[in-house]
Parts: sequence; C-alpha cells; structure tokens
Amino acid sequence: MSSGGKGGGAKGGGGKKKEVKKETKLGMAYKKDDNFGEWYSEVVVNSEMIEYYDISGCYILRPWAMEIWELLKEFFDAEIKKLKLKPYYFPLFVTENVLQKEKDHIEGFAPEVAWVTKSGKSDLEAPIAIRPTTLWVKHSATILFRSREFLWQEGHTAFATKEEADEEVLQILELYRRIYEEFLAVPVSKGRKSEMEKFAGGLYTTSVEAFIPNTGRGIQGATSHCLGQNFAKMFDITYENEKGAREMIGVMVMTHGDDKGLVLPPRVAPIQVIVIPVPYKDADTTAIKGACESAVYTLNESGFRADLDTRENYSPGWKYSHWEMKGVPLRIEIGPKDLANKQVRIVRRDNGAKVDIPVANLVEEVKALLDEIQGNLLKTAKEKRDACIEVIHTWDEFTAALNNKRLILAPWCDEEEVEKDVKNRTKGDLGAAKTLCTPFDQPELPEGSVCFASGKPAKKWSFWGRSY
Amino acid sequence: MSSGGKGGGAKGGGGKKKEVKKETKLGMAYKKDDNFGEWYSEVVVNSEMIEYYDISGCYILRPWAMEIWELLKEFFDAEIKKLKLKPYYFPLFVTENVLQKEKDHIEGFAPEVAWVTKSGKSDLEAPIAIRPTTLWVKHSATILFRSREFLWQEGHTAFATKEEADEEVLQILELYRRIYEEFLAVPVSKGRKSEMEKFAGGLYTTSVEAFIPNTGRGIQGATSHCLGQNFAKMFDITYENEKGAREMIGVMVMTHGDDKGLVLPPRVAPIQVIVIPVPYKDADTTAIKGACESAVYTLNESGFRADLDTRENYSPGWKYSHWEMKGVPLRIEIGPKDLANKQVRIVRRDNGAKVDIPVANLVEEVKALLDEIQGNLLKTAKEKRDACIEVIHTWDEFTAALNNKRLILAPWCDEEEVEKDVKNRTKGDLGAAKTLCTPFDQPELPEGSVCFASGKPAKKWSFWGRSY
Repeated sequence: MSSGGKGGGAKGGGGKKKEVKKETKLGMAYKKDDNFGEWYSEVVVNSEMIEYYDISGCYILRPWAMEIWELLKEFFDAEIKKLKLKPYYFPLFVTENVLQKEKDHIEGFAPEVAWVTKSGKSDLEAPIAIRPTTLWVKHSATILFRSREFLWQEGHTAFATKEEADEEVLQILELYRRIYEEFLAVPVSKGRKSEMEKFAGGLYTTSVEAFIPNTGRGIQGATSHCLGQNFAKMFDITYENEKGAREMIGVMVMTHGDDKGLVLPPRVAPIQVIVIPVPYKDADTTAIKGACESAVYTLNESGFRADLDTRENYSPGWKYSHWEMKGVPLRIEIGPKDLANKQVRIVRRDNGAKVDIPVANLVEEVKALLDEIQGNLLKTAKEKRDACIEVIHTWDEFTAALNNKRLILAPWCDEEEVEKDVKNRTKGDLGAAKTLCTPFDQPELPEGSVCFASGKPAKKWSFWGRSY
Repeated sequence: MSSGGKGGGAKGGGGKKKEVKKETKLGMAYKKDDNFGEWYSEVVVNSEMIEYYDISGCYILRPWAMEIWELLKEFFDAEIKKLKLKPYYFPLFVTENVLQKEKDHIEGFAPEVAWVTKSGKSDLEAPIAIRPTTLWVKHSATILFRSREFLWQEGHTAFATKEEADEEVLQILELYRRIYEEFLAVPVSKGRKSEMEKFAGGLYTTSVEAFIPNTGRGIQGATSHCLGQNFAKMFDITYENEKGAREMIGVMVMTHGDDKGLVLPPRVAPIQVIVIPVPYKDADTTAIKGACESAVYTLNESGFRADLDTRENYSPGWKYSHWEMKGVPLRIEIGPKDLANKQVRIVRRDNGAKVDIPVANLVEEVKALLDEIQGNLLKTAKEKRDACIEVIHTWDEFTAALNNKRLILAPWCDEEEVEKDVKNRTKGDLGAAKTLCTPFDQPELPEGSVCFASGKPAKKWSFWGRSY
C-alpha cells in the first residue's frame, strides 16, 4: 500500500492497537522542547539502547548502542593503527603505592577512586584501588596505547620532543572531530581549554566541544592532552581520552533526536534500511514477502545494512513507530500496489519525506538518500548550533546571552583570575558560566579589543557558556 | 651473508657483544626441561608479551601479546556474528542485592568477590561488588552476548528448548577448539566435565582440554556451559566463558616454546616474517637495505605480516636472538652474497632449517613455509600429547601413570563419590588427580569393563590427571 503514514497504526487506530501500544510502551510521553531531560531518558530506553540499573551512574548498554559503538570503534582503531600506536592492557587494580607516586594525578582523582577493601569475607591486608586512569607510563620512546574496558580507549605517547608531542595531540583530536562530524553528524569546535579547565597536572588540553541548543549547554566531546613531563620524568607524554561510547552517543541522541525518538545518521546506524511488508487482507502475502526479501538481499549485497521486519503479531503501523523510535534512517514499505507497479515506497526518518521509486533503481536511490540524510543531519545541526552563537563584547551582553542560552564567543584577557571571577558572578541554579574552549579557528581580533569581563586588553576569542 | 648462524652474535662473540647481551638480558637463563616454571616466566617477559606488576595475579599485557589476542578476537567476533549473537555491555559494579538473588552462583564465587567499600575517603553506604561474572539474564528469547573488559568474552543465550541450547553449547565449543587447534596449533580434546567439575549450579559443562607434557598436567582451555533453568527461571540459558587472552596464549607458550624463547604459529604471529639486513663492512649497505625493503613491501602487499629490523646499534646476531625470543616464524637474512645471487636466506623458527631461495619466488616460498610451520606445530604438539596418553584399567596402573605424568584415559563408573575418593587417595604435594573430561570421541568400551577405581561397571572412558 505505502499509504499507512508514519506511526498511524500505533498512535491512532482502534482499541486493539491501543492495547498493543500500552503494553509495549510505544510512543513518547515527553517532548524534546518541553522536558528535555525526561525526553532524553525516554529516547535512550525506548530505542533499546540502554537499560537502567540499580547502581546510580551505571547502566546496561544493549545491542542497539553497542553496534553503534562498534562502528565508531572500527574507524577509530583503523586510524590509530595508521599512527602506529600499539595496544597495551593494564590491570583493573592498582596499589595505593602506585597511586601515591603520581601526586598531581591523585589530587584530581582522589574523590572518585573506588577502593576494594574486602575479598569475599576477608579484609585485604592493604586496600586496592580500581584504576581511575592510566598511571603507568613507560619510560622510553615506545609508543603506548591502552584499552582497559571494552568501551574505553585511552592513549599515551612518549616523545623525545615537545614538537612531536604537539603534532600527535592534534592528530588524535582530528580523529575525534571526524567521529563527531563525519559519523555522528554532530558539529564540534576544536580548541584549547583554559588553564582552569585543562587536565590537572598536564601541560595543556585540547578538546572538541559540542553544543546542545535545547539546553543551551556546551558539552566536551573528547580531549587530547599534552601532559608535559609531569607524569613521566624523562619524556613528554601526550594524549588521553576517557570518554567513550556513552558520551559520544549521548551527544548524538541529543542533537538529532525528535519527538518520535532517536534519529540515527546512516554511517552509524546498525540498520540503515528497514523493510516492512504491508499486506492487505486479500493481498498476495507470499509475493509481498518475496519482494521484501529480495530488497533486503539486494541492499545487503551492495554493502548496506538492511533488515526485514516480518513479525506477524505487529501491525505495519506499529512497526513504523517502532523503527522510527530506534532511529533507522530509511523505511521501505512494500504493499500490493507497489508490487503491481514494480516499485517500493521509501520514507526518510530525518524529515518524513516519502518517495516511490522503481525496484530497478533501489540501490542507487538508497545510496543517494543515505548520503543526503548524512549530510543533511550535519548541515541542520550546524545551522542550529551556529544560530546559537552570539558574539559579545561587554559584561551586560554576556549575561543577557547567557540567560538566552547562547553559545557565547567573547574577547578575553585569558587570565585565570578573571575566569574564576566570571564563575563567581554567574553562580546560580543553572550552574556557573565557564570557558568551553578557545577555538583554533579564531575570528580576527581588532586592535584595541578589551576583555568582556575584566576590561583588560583581550588576547583571544573564547567560547563561554554553561556546560554539562 | 646468511652465514651468521642463529644467535651467534649474542651468545658468543667478543666483549662488546657480551655487554650488549648483558644489558638487554638477551638469551634465556632457564631451560624448558629443567625448570619449567621459571622458563615460562622468562619466556613471557623476554618475548615482551607481559610485564609483571605489584599486585599478585595482575600483569600488564604488552603489544606483542595484545596483537596475538586481537588476531584471535577477529576470528571469534566474526564467527559469533554469524551465530547472530548480539553484544551487550554490563557495568563493572553490582549490588549485594543482585548478587544475593543468585545463590547458587554466589556460593561458587563468594570467596573471590572483590568488594568496594570506599569511594575516595568516604565509606559507601552499602558495599558494591566487582561483577564476578554475568548475573544479569534477560527473560526473553533474545540472544545475549556480553563483553565486559576488552579481554573478556562471555556469552549467554536464552532458548525456548533444551535441544536448541544443547546445539549452541556445542557450536561455541567448536569455535574454541578451532582457536586452539587452527590458530594456536594446540591440540585439545572436546568433552564433558564431571558433576564435580562442572560449573556450580549449571546443568552441564563442556570444555576443550589441553595437556602440557612437560608438567604432565591438563589445562582447561575454555568452557561452554548449559546452565539449565537455574539462573533464569523461565528459560534455558547456555554458555559462558571467562577465559581470555591469558589462558589461551599461556597454553600456546607452554606448548611450542623452546630454550630460545617463544615459538609462534604463523596464524597468530603479529610479525610472521622478520627481515634482517646482514651488511659486511665493505658491503653495499644501501643496496642491501633496498633489497630488504623490497622484500618486506612485496610480502606485505601479498597479505603477510612482514617487518624490517634496520636498527644500527644491534648486530645481526643480536637481532636473530631477539626475534627468535619473540617467536617470529620466519627470518629472512639478506647479505652481499644474497644480493649478488638474487636470493634471500630464510630460516625457520620451529626447526631452525635454512634455505636459500630466489627473490623471484619469495611470496610462494614464504606462503608454503608458513603453511608448513602452522601444520607442523600442531602435528608435533599432537604427537607429543598423544605419546603421553596412557590407557589404564586398574588402580595400580592409574597411580603408576600418574607418577609418570601421563594423560590417563580410564574406564569409569561416573559416580561423584568415586571421583571424591580418587582425589582423597591421590592427595599430595603435586595436587590430587581429578577428571579432566569425558571426551566426546569415545573409544569402544568392551562389555564387562569395570571402573579402575571402584570396580563397579564402567560407563565411559574419561581423561584423568593432575591439572592447572
């Protein structure tokens, strides 16, 4: 048929369908613009990405999230290999002794360190810490790379000179930018963190920063640090990343999701095309099923990730809602009319547009549509983000922009005391404002520009705002 | 030249070379047949696979071990995908509450559970356990697969019927057999564990069992359990594996390693062919280096993992020893004579055989040699293992075979009390004997056969011995 409309079955319909809806909790109770927090929790659970758990801050990642992560990891691992980084595996446990060796590190992490004090029913002679981050650094020019848990990556590289270290810090940062922009379709700004916001004890920290228009908050997407010579006495040590699946995927959900649920960029969608048979009662169901199977086969053979939903205990409408909730970029519907006309109906998740295309053109049309969706998501997100950027020059403009949830670009004197002062003056329920980063891509700073907060000569443009 | 001989530079030679040797600890202090335990520790450290660490039982896996593991993982992940298993990620922490829900499980694991009781300097309200194994099982027919840490895999599958569960238990077991035999070249026996040795609370446990001739001990290579309905009340739950890189790679080291260090089967060798220039003083070093680079390039292009050791501060002899220690299957030496004759010298790690081959035949010769080494290692290991198998019928034969460090195949009544009794009667410094497995591949059991230990009618042939 191809005329069922998106989610019609689940959202309208008779008593029977309503029951199905209730039972399976299909459909979103919250709207993105009304209650962003609840909306987010609902999306990640209803799309079957995560399951909450009885320890705060811990949750189970389900296959829909894991498969997205694996697609990112595949790219990242291949690029890391090109940089000749080598994999290391470090034990989960670390002694107090080793922790104490790195005092700078400990100061930053001490409040978070989890201590194992008992094994079974016996007390341990000495408590053992769960490794908060890599503390082990090899004193040689060997290149190090470490992966503790499946979802973590963290890199450390030792170099003979600071120049080499600087170069790799930026190479890694560029990989993160590509993951965000080319895979997750999330625009980010590359830049350098302020002295207050950098990794404690390190020399400097670079980051990619995303921005969530709905909440007006910046979010640090990933970091690449130059640790200087503080952690290993003999060499420069460079980059590190503790972010993983959760943060990256979370930013993507917030950026593209809508009131129907998740919206996945094609490059990271575990299923890019879901094919749904739409048989009327007296239709030739065997032929329709055959046409669906053929479409899935053809697409998989051409390298797309396509799947078929032939479950008989769910209506087509329910399935539309289900796969929209899970964010699958394209839906193909095949009904009797489509069969007769040797066509399929394709529906886009990002904008709901529908198009009937001849079966003969399936592969090229799907390719074109997926490419367009991938590009469109980044373009739209970038436009929304850019519309939030506000260039300000004075304290009054700053506070007004902050109240309007803007991503603020301001001339700054780059003094730590001034950043502390801004934090103090903007304290409140929503949290204080801080620097997000000083973007590498600097607009021209006119001669005589002054800092918006201190009135002293401005040294650079920096992004300011509230953040996660 | 190609006449330096293996390790000549490092082991003999003048004062200067001796210094290098001392400084870098090249060469093995222990022999496999004299002191197996020390030899093993020396091999895994000297080959740069692991680094010991200040917590007992924990160590750092270095790239040489990690890259082997990644080759195994690549195979396993692809096969797991074919079985349509889906990845899940579970938090590291688990509450006492959840642990208590699975009493059978807890009894088995309680002595090992690590408890976190402090976060930073504060006591936690309730202690949190470090997940000993997956306790979370989904009550549906959904297929589960979980990977906690990078090196761990653990599978759980829920099925509607025991028959389906049985089938998958064996499919997974077969994957482990293939990892051991086809990749690590370690012969294993597939079989079923006794009631005493099975996974506590499960229905039955299958395993692949390896045997280390030097110590006369069996070692459980991997397990695939049918957990029955004890863990999830509604469904059969099936298989699980907590073994990882360490165990598999450890068994491989013990099986193939020799007094020169590690011996790697080609399929898991991070470097399959190491190319070493052997320039005499007045040789055309540029041309030799060029020939070496060309060989590496050609081999890499053909899909082999080849690398070049051009370090100038090490002698060719030192390099021979170094790469022998690391177990690289083939060494290619190129000196002035080789250059003149358009040949290279290839030296096998497994048997030390040397052959000069025309450069034009490089790819096909390397392919043939690597295949031969892979097959030869398994064949040799199988012959050694098989030579240790002793079929016995009486208690006297049993104790004699045990003292001779044999892998004992005995007719058994399959009674738990009898296994307990055997354990009691064989207690001692070396540890008691126990069943390793009842092999699926059963020899004929003649009518009237009796159990070697109890004299009751024998039901099956089982492997017995001491184990790790």
